[in-house]
Amino acid sequence: MKIVVDAMGGDYAPESVVAGIVEALKEFDVFITLVGIQEQILAELKKYNYPKDRVEIIHAPTTIAMNEPATVSIRGKKDSSISVGVNLLKEQGYDAFVSAGNTGAVVAASTIFLGMLRGIERPAIGLVIPTLQKFAFLIDVGANTEPKPEHLFQSALMAQVYAKEVLGVINPKVGLLNIGEEAGKGSGFYKETYKMMEERVGDFTGNVEANGLFKGENDCIICDGVMGNVVIKISQGLMEGAASLLRREIKKSPVAMFGALLMKSRLNHIKKLADYSEYGGAPLLGVNGIVMISHGRSNPKAIKNAIKATIREIEHNILDVMAEKVAQASR
Amino acid sequence: MKIVVDAMGGDYAPESVVAGIVEALKEFDVFITLVGIQEQILAELKKYNYPKDRVEIIHAPTTIAMNEPATVSIRGKKDSSISVGVNLLKEQGYDAFVSAGNTGAVVAASTIFLGMLRGIERPAIGLVIPTLQKFAFLIDVGANTEPKPEHLFQSALMAQVYAKEVLGVINPKVGLLNIGEEAGKGSGFYKETYKMMEERVGDFTGNVEANGLFKGENDCIICDGVMGNVVIKISQGLMEGAASLLRREIKKSPVAMFGALLMKSRLNHIKKLADYSEYGGAPLLGVNGIVMISHGRSNPKAIKNAIKATIREIEHNILDVMAEKVAQASR
Repeated sequence: MKIVVDAMGGDYAPESVVAGIVEALKEFDVFITLVGIQEQILAELKKYNYPKDRVEIIHAPTTIAMNEPATVSIRGKKDSSISVGVNLLKEQGYDAFVSAGNTGAVVAASTIFLGMLRGIERPAIGLVIPTLQKFAFLIDVGANTEPKPEHLFQSALMAQVYAKEVLGVINPKVGLLNIGEEAGKGSGFYKETYKMMEERVGDFTGNVEANGLFKGENDCIICDGVMGNVVIKISQGLMEGAASLLRREIKKSPVAMFGALLMKSRLNHIKKLADYSEYGGAPLLGVNGIVMISHGRSNPKAIKNAIKATIREIEHNILDVMAEKVAQASR
Repeated sequence: MKIVVDAMGGDYAPESVVAGIVEALKEFDVFITLVGIQEQILAELKKYNYPKDRVEIIHAPTTIAMNEPATVSIRGKKDSSISVGVNLLKEQGYDAFVSAGNTGAVVAASTIFLGMLRGIERPAIGLVIPTLQKFAFLIDVGANTEPKPEHLFQSALMAQVYAKEVLGVINPKVGLLNIGEEAGKGSGFYKETYKMMEERVGDFTGNVEANGLFKGENDCIICDGVMGNVVIKISQGLMEGAASLLRREIKKSPVAMFGALLMKSRLNHIKKLADYSEYGGAPLLGVNGIVMISHGRSNPKAIKNAIKATIREIEHNILDVMAEKVAQASR
């Protein structure tokens, strides 16, 4: 099993990426191909003891910055770590690509160079989010901002495969994120999507309202890319806002500060539950290759967990399973 | 000044509504017209001492339930408290309508019976949300689920008028909720909306990402109705989820429970900041009449604060100011 990793991707690359793959090499029986600026990668690798027979470096002289316009940089920088990395997947023996780099660039490179998986029309990014009960798989969190109903339908099928094969959910329940719970809610787009899912997606539970998302009653939540992106960013902004509000209020009172100290271990437990780095990366589904996008702020643990999820995708042959599921649903 | 109040609207009607108007009568020099089932209203009013010369009751025999399909019930129940209440606004001497009832029904009744304000094509619901710095006015939170760019442009102008006249902001800054901060982000719809706002909305600051919403850098945040609805419901769901997670974790440790006790007054302060009932209702803007939608779970304080905001709308002659602003921007 050979996983290509973008050594230059993310805010803390290449340090965090290299540290993460070293951890992954300890835990998993995997071969890692690091793509990026060779000297920088070697300088980082030198810090560690690692199995040299399970690491190779492929030099890519340029990098794509986190805020560069995606399609422009993909077409312009054919020798960037993202372009080179994604292109390796077309060669024999390379199984997956992991990057904490520019999300738009990874989506564009994957779509252009790998093409779409048979039966799928558009890519979608999934994300495992914590809920009160268990985890939920939210898709799409930003790849497709102008989807048609059939794109959401296809994402629902891919999500069920991912939830089953990678997250280990037996019969993943699917909900459609909408403005109300009743079947007739929302715009024409939502009504049509609802109908398509009701008729052709097994274990479809209907609409989910945003305030019910974190109750965890569904295993997969389907939405368009703009909506999904807003959901995760609102959640992030709100939790950060609430945390800084809490700190501000606590500092106003020594008694409250002492109280917070006593609560520390429980608060840390909540922090861990809400920590993205525990859940691996965000799989880019729908393209003809296994691609995992790790958070831009990825620390070594996040990189390691992204690789862990990627390994499950490879082991469970997820591309064929998804293509087969879509083919069945379309018959 | 005569404000029509839907006595039957909301989960705790008519108790909460009547209690709320009694509080409002104490604080504000206003005349209240209660619309609803007369016996029930009288039974509630009997509990209080209130200025009888500033209250009238107009009987409306039917009510629209919170989950009834909106347009059906408006066309079917012409004698419901919402239909009767909205229709009163067309008569001389009635200045505004306040309801904590079925939002969709209030939007439908207002649009059908009052028509649109001159220059405005679609209604939009605004909502004051707390942020880390101050308040922000988020619009639309659910009236228009399939807007065109010009609808968002018109909402931006209405929001600026509301922020200035009702919330007292001198030069309200406007941001567009989008998937990224750069000007070229998002679908064609967003690009077109951005361009229109950039050219024709004063104090337009550009795109706002969802994770920046609660930083409070803008006074008005413009979005489509589906997005705004998801934003407020995600926020609600997440805060409730975080609170119940916190309770669950604290209960696991007596030390943490004691810590929480010490933090109580600061936690209550945060709770108050996040309490919707402090901020009045959600104005329905764009229709040819002053309509205020109060939260379905409105307690008396929420009703009173909704009436307070409504009074400011009337005093500042907000309909004419909005129409004039839209006319100027269209010249």
